[in-house]
Amino acid sequence: MTKILIVYATDTGNTKKMAEAIAEGAQGEGAQVDIRSAEEVTKEEVVACNALIVGSPVHMGSPDWRVKKFIDTICSRLWMKDALVGKVGGVFVCGGGFGSAGGGCEITLLALLNNLAELGMIMIPLPKNTPGYRSGGLQWGPYGRSQGINHEQLGVQPEALECARHHGAHIARAAEILKGQPIFEQLTSKKT
Amino acid sequence: MTKILIVYATDTGNTKKMAEAIAEGAQGEGAQVDIRSAEEVTKEEVVACNALIVGSPVHMGSPDWRVKKFIDTICSRLWMKDALVGKVGGVFVCGGGFGSAGGGCEITLLALLNNLAELGMIMIPLPKNTPGYRSGGLQWGPYGRSQGINHEQLGVQPEALECARHHGAHIARAAEILKGQPIFEQLTSKKT
Amino acid sequence: MTKILIVYATDTGNTKKMAEAIAEGAQGEGAQVDIRSAEEVTKEEVVACNALIVGSPVHMGSPDWRVKKFIDTICSRLWMKDALVGKVGGVFVCGGGFGSAGGGCEITLLALLNNLAELGMIMIPLPKNTPGYRSGGLQWGPYGRSQGINHEQLGVQPEALECARHHGAHIARAAEILKGQPIFEQLTSKKT
Amino acid sequence: MTKILIVYATDTGNTKKMAEAIAEGAQGEGAQVDIRSAEEVTKEEVVACNALIVGSPVHMGSPDWRVKKFIDTICSRLWMKDALVGKVGGVFVCGGGFGSAGGGCEITLLALLNNLAELGMIMIPLPKNTPGYRSGGLQWGPYGRSQGINHEQLGVQPEALECARHHGAHIARAAEILKGQPIFEQLTSKKT
Repeated sequence: MTKILIVYATDTGNTKKMAEAIAEGAQGEGAQVDIRSAEEVTKEEVVACNALIVGSPVHMGSPDWRVKKFIDTICSRLWMKDALVGKVGGVFVCGGGFGSAGGGCEITLLALLNNLAELGMIMIPLPKNTPGYRSGGLQWGPYGRSQGINHEQLGVQPEALECARHHGAHIARAAEILKGQPIFEQLTSKKT
Repeated sequence: MTKILIVYATDTGNTKKMAEAIAEGAQGEGAQVDIRSAEEVTKEEVVACNALIVGSPVHMGSPDWRVKKFIDTICSRLWMKDALVGKVGGVFVCGGGFGSAGGGCEITLLALLNNLAELGMIMIPLPKNTPGYRSGGLQWGPYGRSQGINHEQLGVQPEALECARHHGAHIARAAEILKGQPIFEQLTSKKT
Repeated sequence: MTKILIVYATDTGNTKKMAEAIAEGAQGEGAQVDIRSAEEVTKEEVVACNALIVGSPVHMGSPDWRVKKFIDTICSRLWMKDALVGKVGGVFVCGGGFGSAGGGCEITLLALLNNLAELGMIMIPLPKNTPGYRSGGLQWGPYGRSQGINHEQLGVQPEALECARHHGAHIARAAEILKGQPIFEQLTSKKT
Repeated sequence: MTKILIVYATDTGNTKKMAEAIAEGAQGEGAQVDIRSAEEVTKEEVVACNALIVGSPVHMGSPDWRVKKFIDTICSRLWMKDALVGKVGGVFVCGGGFGSAGGGCEITLLALLNNLAELGMIMIPLPKNTPGYRSGGLQWGPYGRSQGINHEQLGVQPEALECARHHGAHIARAAEILKGQPIFEQLTSKKT
């Protein structure tokens, strides 16, 4: 069975809702999904997954420090051992969206994706024809905007959650196909 | 007199409107402003300015190739000679905004700012308390969103233009104060 | 047969050498590889490939304008039609490397990858245990440094080419496995 | 007197050495400099400075979580109040450099600069004609590479420290000139 691990931090519950929608989408494809906060997840859980999906609130244009602590303390040791090379990865974020230009969500998504790239993971984008993309999509992953134009608290909207569900399904399908495949095996001397 | 040069590309006129609003803001501070398309601007005009402001439509998440051609063919020669070191720089973009997450505008702004950083220019951000920021602002510069949620053509909205006017004023003031200042002069041996 | 398309620009031939090394690695895995300059490649060739690999010299910290013109004029029309969604993508760059900090290669690689993400392509990173990574690797793809510490022209070194060969092999394998797979198909109502 | 605050995290002391070199350069220009670890710095110290310089080791291609915790817990409150708008900012990083392509230092520098942009700070780049740039420079700021090509521990080299000293001097000069200037004051209705 394909194992998906979703690691996130949340302040007011919006990022958690996005995590749950992603989980739902992945489960609909038959994957086994674990959702863990960045502070509780263990190294063993990361090693065991076929796909790792990381999400964060947008704080000052970059991921929450608790997510970075997870990357620095757990993932960096696995990076040393090349333990996650070839797994599948994806990212998502939530934010207030003040400015109507994403409010820093793009470079936050990119910061998370960067960490997955360092780990040697195959990265799943969010195609613009994904349902819900119209109000919750960016090329790097789904974005749950929690506030309206005047800073009013609206919470994550259904379209963003729809986007998130599809992102989860996409990642589960890719992980199913790619698990155990020798994509990054070294070339033998005969071939080079 | 402080000289401001605005270089841009435009498809349907939206980025041009943003350029004009920035020019208006800079002129209001007493600066002399030239607006040039990326295809007509000359090396001499770039060398002569105190501040360079570059703008572009968002195309596939990065600046229009005509803007990049300007950077590659004109600016890169000036980079060789360190001819723009210490000038003031700023950026702006326009885009359809599909996805409500900026539609790639953040990394487009960043790509332009990156070019200015390579040239050794002092970079002026867009503070979130700038009038108009609510619907046209990002930390890197103003963003003119031209479409509504359903891809309908609305054109750049007044708030984004207000943001742009202020960005022009900010940059003109910074250029006025910083022009001719020896910020990047090398340390003498006595000091080091 | 898996079809790989490599699109690049080159100034002095270094990026071309990297493109050829990537092609060699992909061919070693049984893929059919076409190498095209950014100015000659056609829309049909892009549509026909299973994996698209884009490379560029580093110019002012971003891709060569000819590569961007390819993205803007050919790829953006395919983006409109979601024609490349689900294909596999990878990137590579060459640069002088002045500064010993990559000389802007990271954000250049990222700019190219960003274009592929917009197109909905599955992105292949460069794991740090790839042969040759020691002197030609970054998480986003291989980097051919062409100059030594004092700006002397050394050309792309064997280790960077080894890295490039492996990158080509990795991408060919991923494309082989992923071609025709319904990763991004929409969820049916039953599932959601 | 111009007040410079340097905030950093360090693992083995290399980033601290860079911080001290930056401090030395700023002091040589007559500035009063405080160096604080990310875990000890106070909100009051941040509010009181004219320029904020932030540095970090490169961890997995992004800043150390302790630096991000400083940004999230101290700076984000000041962001709410626009309390740092118009101050001067700069960044620096250290890393092992495996790969000879910067080892992720560029996007780490950018992540830090992004936080400063969010705060509305004027950003000082590192021009390529800065002494020491040859082996320790990137457009966004100085980079102290601590390891050799084979992972051997060399520590930060003198050229990177020279670069850092100049960066400190540049920032001190810019802060001296810009402090108290009304760059970002709102336009009066008369002007707009």
